[in-house]
Amino acid sequence: MKTNISLEEAQSILTSNALPTLEQNVSLIEAVGRVISKDIVAGENVPSFNRSPLDGYALLAEDTAKADPNRPAKLKIIEELPPGNIAKKNVLPGTTIKVMTGSVIPEGANAVVKYEDVIEEDQFISICSPLKPGANIVRAGEDILKGQLVAKKGYPISSPLIGVLASLGYSTIPVYTKPKVAIITTGDEIVDINEDLSKGKLRNSNLYCLAAYCQELGAEPIIIGNAADRAESVTKAIARALSLADLIVITGGVSVGENDPVKEAIKAAGAKMLFRKVTMKPGSPTLAAIKDNKIVIGLSGNPASAVIAFYLMVVPVIKRLSGYENYMWPQIEAEITNEFHKPSPSRRFLRGQLFIDDGTAKVTLTGKQANGVLSSLVGCNFLVDVPAGTGAIEAGQKVKGYLISY
Amino acid sequence: MKTNISLEEAQSILTSNALPTLEQNVSLIEAVGRVISKDIVAGENVPSFNRSPLDGYALLAEDTAKADPNRPAKLKIIEELPPGNIAKKNVLPGTTIKVMTGSVIPEGANAVVKYEDVIEEDQFISICSPLKPGANIVRAGEDILKGQLVAKKGYPISSPLIGVLASLGYSTIPVYTKPKVAIITTGDEIVDINEDLSKGKLRNSNLYCLAAYCQELGAEPIIIGNAADRAESVTKAIARALSLADLIVITGGVSVGENDPVKEAIKAAGAKMLFRKVTMKPGSPTLAAIKDNKIVIGLSGNPASAVIAFYLMVVPVIKRLSGYENYMWPQIEAEITNEFHKPSPSRRFLRGQLFIDDGTAKVTLTGKQANGVLSSLVGCNFLVDVPAGTGAIEAGQKVKGYLISY
Repeated sequence: MKTNISLEEAQSILTSNALPTLEQNVSLIEAVGRVISKDIVAGENVPSFNRSPLDGYALLAEDTAKADPNRPAKLKIIEELPPGNIAKKNVLPGTTIKVMTGSVIPEGANAVVKYEDVIEEDQFISICSPLKPGANIVRAGEDILKGQLVAKKGYPISSPLIGVLASLGYSTIPVYTKPKVAIITTGDEIVDINEDLSKGKLRNSNLYCLAAYCQELGAEPIIIGNAADRAESVTKAIARALSLADLIVITGGVSVGENDPVKEAIKAAGAKMLFRKVTMKPGSPTLAAIKDNKIVIGLSGNPASAVIAFYLMVVPVIKRLSGYENYMWPQIEAEITNEFHKPSPSRRFLRGQLFIDDGTAKVTLTGKQANGVLSSLVGCNFLVDVPAGTGAIEAGQKVKGYLISY
Repeated sequence: MKTNISLEEAQSILTSNALPTLEQNVSLIEAVGRVISKDIVAGENVPSFNRSPLDGYALLAEDTAKADPNRPAKLKIIEELPPGNIAKKNVLPGTTIKVMTGSVIPEGANAVVKYEDVIEEDQFISICSPLKPGANIVRAGEDILKGQLVAKKGYPISSPLIGVLASLGYSTIPVYTKPKVAIITTGDEIVDINEDLSKGKLRNSNLYCLAAYCQELGAEPIIIGNAADRAESVTKAIARALSLADLIVITGGVSVGENDPVKEAIKAAGAKMLFRKVTMKPGSPTLAAIKDNKIVIGLSGNPASAVIAFYLMVVPVIKRLSGYENYMWPQIEAEITNEFHKPSPSRRFLRGQLFIDDGTAKVTLTGKQANGVLSSLVGCNFLVDVPAGTGAIEAGQKVKGYLISY
């Protein structure tokens, strides 16, 4: 088992042990936000026919080649198309068919002249300037060409993609099943939200915060609940979680000095330790184990440490289990708008909010940065990555970090 | 009724006619993504007590004032706290109580010394350097102070906020009800996704795309279906929609030249027209009416025109109905990475993808920009706003636009 590893090594160990769950077919309307499990190639052109983008007259461009205001081209109207109808006749030299926005271009025609650009009189139209072949005709396949890759395996399904798949006739979509994520909290000092808060007790924020995050991410949270600070209680909770979920997340009990119920419980559950302690703050006491291909991750019980370690180490696992091709958060640079004078002997992550100002990415720290402060994670969408050995950070400096919005 | 108005005027008319729907209480775990309907002020400190952030010994800082390696301060251990327990004794001069991470600071103590920084022998500890009063003590209210505004009416509820509300003991949360958005498509050329595609027909992408977008936005889509291109069919669909939904969105039938079933149907339904035609491309044929405080918005039937007009004009309405305080998309600047040489005689919106590169916001156009092309909306999170009269746009130029990610 490795100890004191870098965040990147922890991410790599964890994600290499996580593989997408099963596949299922869901109806088109249920597919929004899910991750597609198969490449989809267009089986046909969309639209499937050449059409008119405006109200006008379909004609042969050659008939208008010599048209000018003194000698307009005169064409006989041989048919008028109501909306949604197909021409019964073909356009022949010297003739035209009146079309509407969206009409199929009648056989024989190779251009459309705008309604406003002609004079119609006695079943004839007069055109005063030449049209090029193809003018005002939208070609079949303008939106999607037959054979085109329209949906890539491993990407989330957005509403425009739902529209694209609808236009190709897909009523069901192959997606990965939602991973089930069990959440266990530990600690004798933890009470549930409905309980009275006697001295020394804390309400269980980790359970609800992390379960809510799983929901936001499209995973299925399984709330196991709080286990007492004894290895037997935690072992029982882990066994239950392993029987119900694809991934197990435990908060608390990982850095309680002499007694360390989570480490003991992981051993008792027969799981193999993957690593222990990560060189970052907050979140350093993180540990991970594996049993029957299911990862068990232990996080600090301190709310902000738990959530930040969850963002940086658990979310990539959930995304990989969900089938995401890009399961890592993007790392970007931004200009920090406030100072942070506390030196960082070890690598530190600061909570910030990214925004764009005058074309520049900027980040503002969201508040107190202590391990126990959850409130400064509200509105946080960026974690500033402060390398070990950094001194004071001044406003206006460029910083790197993880963009944690999805 | 106004015609040919600016996008901003259309947005203003629409949103000023949209007010948040009712309120309801939902359980904490169901509240994620919902919009909070009342300010929430902390009724207590979180945590409610002074605590130790580490394993160590609680003491009186004054007892260590003269400590040095030659003359260490010696304190008697009078109690050892198991996790989650409260001290029975008080710390008096010359004594100490062993505490654990998260322990309540015992009465009398005003500092904690780290476990690693002392020598423990025969129920005594030796300390070699002075501690300041307050050292290693996390104050009550470190995370949240009693009286602090923790959740603001009109903002969406994120998972960290769920954690904050859990820590304050909220098991239910007041939120706005989800607005119901009816979607009607029109057009004789439209068939449903399961039907055969005979010549000249198109599958109904608008219905599924816009319904999916409502879901992504946290609204409840009500799929009314496709109405034939006749005023009676559309009138019937609008009547049904008005009886079921808070907002009615119709695509198609707004620019079909001579016959214009949506305009007629709106009149027949007894709705008052608000405006018709907006000076932008795509999306210019947009119209809006109101009946019994419910807005009816008619969009182009062309997929990209419908979706872009939906993003820019319908989404702010849905957000306002949902209770959002900030219901408008942010407008930002970015550097465009490709050229767009087609001139823009009228105001034009281009589909792009925003990303951050080396601290700079950049936008890359996502593909074909024609009104009928839906596929280039996949991955689009930014609409470049090209003012009327703009000529060619070159790569590297700064552009403005709407950031349409939520």
